[in-house]
Amino acid sequence: MQAEIISIGDEILIGQTINTNAAWMGEHLNTIGIRVHRTTAIADSKEEIVNMLEEALSRSSLVLITGGLGPTKDDVTKKTLAEYFNMPLEIDAETLERVSTFFRSRGLPVLKVNEDQALMPKGCTVLHNLRGTANGMWFEKDGKVIVSMPGVPYEMEWLMENEVFPRVLDFFKRPSIVHRTILTTGVGESFLADQISAWEDSLEELNIKLAYLPSPGAVKLRMSAYGGGSEVELKSQIEKKERELLEIIGEHVFGFEKDTLASVVGKKLIAEKAMIAVAESCTGGMISHLITDIPGSSSYFLGGLITYNEKIKIAELGVSPELIAEHTVYSEEVALAMASCAVKTFGADYAVSTTGVAGPDDSDGVKVGTIWVAAANKERAVCTKLRLGKSRERNIIMASNAALNLLRKEFLQINR
Amino acid sequence: MQAEIISIGDEILIGQTINTNAAWMGEHLNTIGIRVHRTTAIADSKEEIVNMLEEALSRSSLVLITGGLGPTKDDVTKKTLAEYFNMPLEIDAETLERVSTFFRSRGLPVLKVNEDQALMPKGCTVLHNLRGTANGMWFEKDGKVIVSMPGVPYEMEWLMENEVFPRVLDFFKRPSIVHRTILTTGVGESFLADQISAWEDSLEELNIKLAYLPSPGAVKLRMSAYGGGSEVELKSQIEKKERELLEIIGEHVFGFEKDTLASVVGKKLIAEKAMIAVAESCTGGMISHLITDIPGSSSYFLGGLITYNEKIKIAELGVSPELIAEHTVYSEEVALAMASCAVKTFGADYAVSTTGVAGPDDSDGVKVGTIWVAAANKERAVCTKLRLGKSRERNIIMASNAALNLLRKEFLQINR
Repeated sequence: MQAEIISIGDEILIGQTINTNAAWMGEHLNTIGIRVHRTTAIADSKEEIVNMLEEALSRSSLVLITGGLGPTKDDVTKKTLAEYFNMPLEIDAETLERVSTFFRSRGLPVLKVNEDQALMPKGCTVLHNLRGTANGMWFEKDGKVIVSMPGVPYEMEWLMENEVFPRVLDFFKRPSIVHRTILTTGVGESFLADQISAWEDSLEELNIKLAYLPSPGAVKLRMSAYGGGSEVELKSQIEKKERELLEIIGEHVFGFEKDTLASVVGKKLIAEKAMIAVAESCTGGMISHLITDIPGSSSYFLGGLITYNEKIKIAELGVSPELIAEHTVYSEEVALAMASCAVKTFGADYAVSTTGVAGPDDSDGVKVGTIWVAAANKERAVCTKLRLGKSRERNIIMASNAALNLLRKEFLQINR
Repeated sequence: MQAEIISIGDEILIGQTINTNAAWMGEHLNTIGIRVHRTTAIADSKEEIVNMLEEALSRSSLVLITGGLGPTKDDVTKKTLAEYFNMPLEIDAETLERVSTFFRSRGLPVLKVNEDQALMPKGCTVLHNLRGTANGMWFEKDGKVIVSMPGVPYEMEWLMENEVFPRVLDFFKRPSIVHRTILTTGVGESFLADQISAWEDSLEELNIKLAYLPSPGAVKLRMSAYGGGSEVELKSQIEKKERELLEIIGEHVFGFEKDTLASVVGKKLIAEKAMIAVAESCTGGMISHLITDIPGSSSYFLGGLITYNEKIKIAELGVSPELIAEHTVYSEEVALAMASCAVKTFGADYAVSTTGVAGPDDSDGVKVGTIWVAAANKERAVCTKLRLGKSRERNIIMASNAALNLLRKEFLQINR
């Protein structure tokens, strides 16, 4: 069975939008055992859409389309599909009600273009979009499936998870696949590969595939057991292999599946009934953002100080001006003091801190990417010096995660 | 003349790599007047590559290929192209010398797989890659051009800029294209469309296309003038239409091209030699991050307080406990006090603040998505109440941008 993706939108072709949707869909289809063999981006053009659809249906059983469903004139996907499948557009009462409520609840009038969002091709399966005003559509033709979804990632992802995947699994009979993702940090891809080489070789006879998924500061290892057994059998094979893996690289493992360093730290703080504070310099709010991105973080996050300016480090955080004068703000001493002062100032149980040069250039003779991260409790503080690259964006996220990881390893005693 | 892009690599199809190359190429080709009408990602498979190439050449004059040129077994692009164009692979002496020097200078042995990087199809134009070991290749066939480049973005970009663009401009004679992107905030896509409907209709006779590019809290409007005149003429048409547009929706326009709310605010602060501070509750560090994401922001950003906990609002920021007791932390009064207190605490010229319920659930009887954003200077403070949706992630980014926008409009007097 072949699947393919069609991304519709001039903005993708001229590079104004990076096609993250195709990557998201490719990744998630893969986890349910469906391989995308082609991804195409085309313009908001009726002719292009029809040609592309015919092409795609000539080789694929599942065609997923995103984009071109907005209310404006350049959005032609819905009209084109309605004509292609010979299904006249009709008002869908449920959608009209939802769209009207959406605008009214925000105190906005319901315009004609908004009402048009409720026009759906008669006979298609309407995939109600509870995250926006443009519905998805499910068409079937000669045993093949065509799905159209809005291009807004947040809406597309919701529709895929809630409306599309269940239907796809039901429509196409798929053999069992079991995945398990193990999250590591603080160690490079090639180093991991070297350490687990023998273990990796042993996966082959069980027909378990291993993928390395690197991101800034972390490498995910995803095992996928394909077919050849029931889900229970595959699961038990994967669990056995996971135990073996943890014996080898357990010290680098910080979590599983969708964990993040911030979520792992958060769970541990909840268990300890402990509170955390943050003092950030070069990471500029990113650590606080990573922590507060998690619903419920208010139960363990007291708050943070972003001390971008030296005088704020002194006046608000309480770092000694003599210490700064002696060591400069770019130093281990100041990172340690920032973490300890944050514990004290916020009345927290733990704190993390960062100081250094995020870049893109060197600063005051300190090389770009030189960043100190520290963690503290009421008694002591520890610090690590990072030597990162020249990308400001990458340095900010890597230093933020390194600070959380330092706290995790030194104080929260989470080995995995 | 049509151009298209072929991205080769399994990692793209399964979403392990996001196809930023296609976006980069589309954007840069567009600026030299070449429109990409299709972008396709396919697997590292000989058969797929040949089929795709035939397809592409049947409709496009310029075909740009990336990926599959590495030294490992799964990289089949070069071999496939050599066979397709019937050009046997031969050692290119210059490349062999460069590749050998590359490895030797790093103290590494030159392996057979590295030497193979110097094998080039006999008769193609070798595009020497001075940023890596895999060369680009330029083929001509029946007045059409096929270019193959490595998939590493840093290498591809270098080759495009130094080897491909000059040759493309020389080979194809191109009509002009002029683009202009106008950035709006605080108003939805359908409202804009409604307001500018007559103006939008007037674009057609000038052969100017309009695209709406929505993102959380902002809508970009991109005009593209195609052909039919010199670059100067098209530019003047676009400028005229831009002036007309600003007459209609100028109040919603915050910038142009690659501006962000944080960068627009930053530029104005630099011009005013003013300093800003931030007091964030529900946005949890995102405003600070948006500001500090910009290199050089330390010249106008003093710092921020993330007052996730009520006691921090009182002890560190200086909000009066009586005010909180009377109105609760979820109130206009507290948002205003937070902004004014931030000005005072940090000794700043301006401050922005946020308080409210980011979600995903209601909190203390306040509906999720109810968020107050405020801005202040030394004399006064203003506040806006937002009614957003249920997505925590989206609410955080939308409220952050709304706070920056409030500052821009109320205090920095940037109308556009």
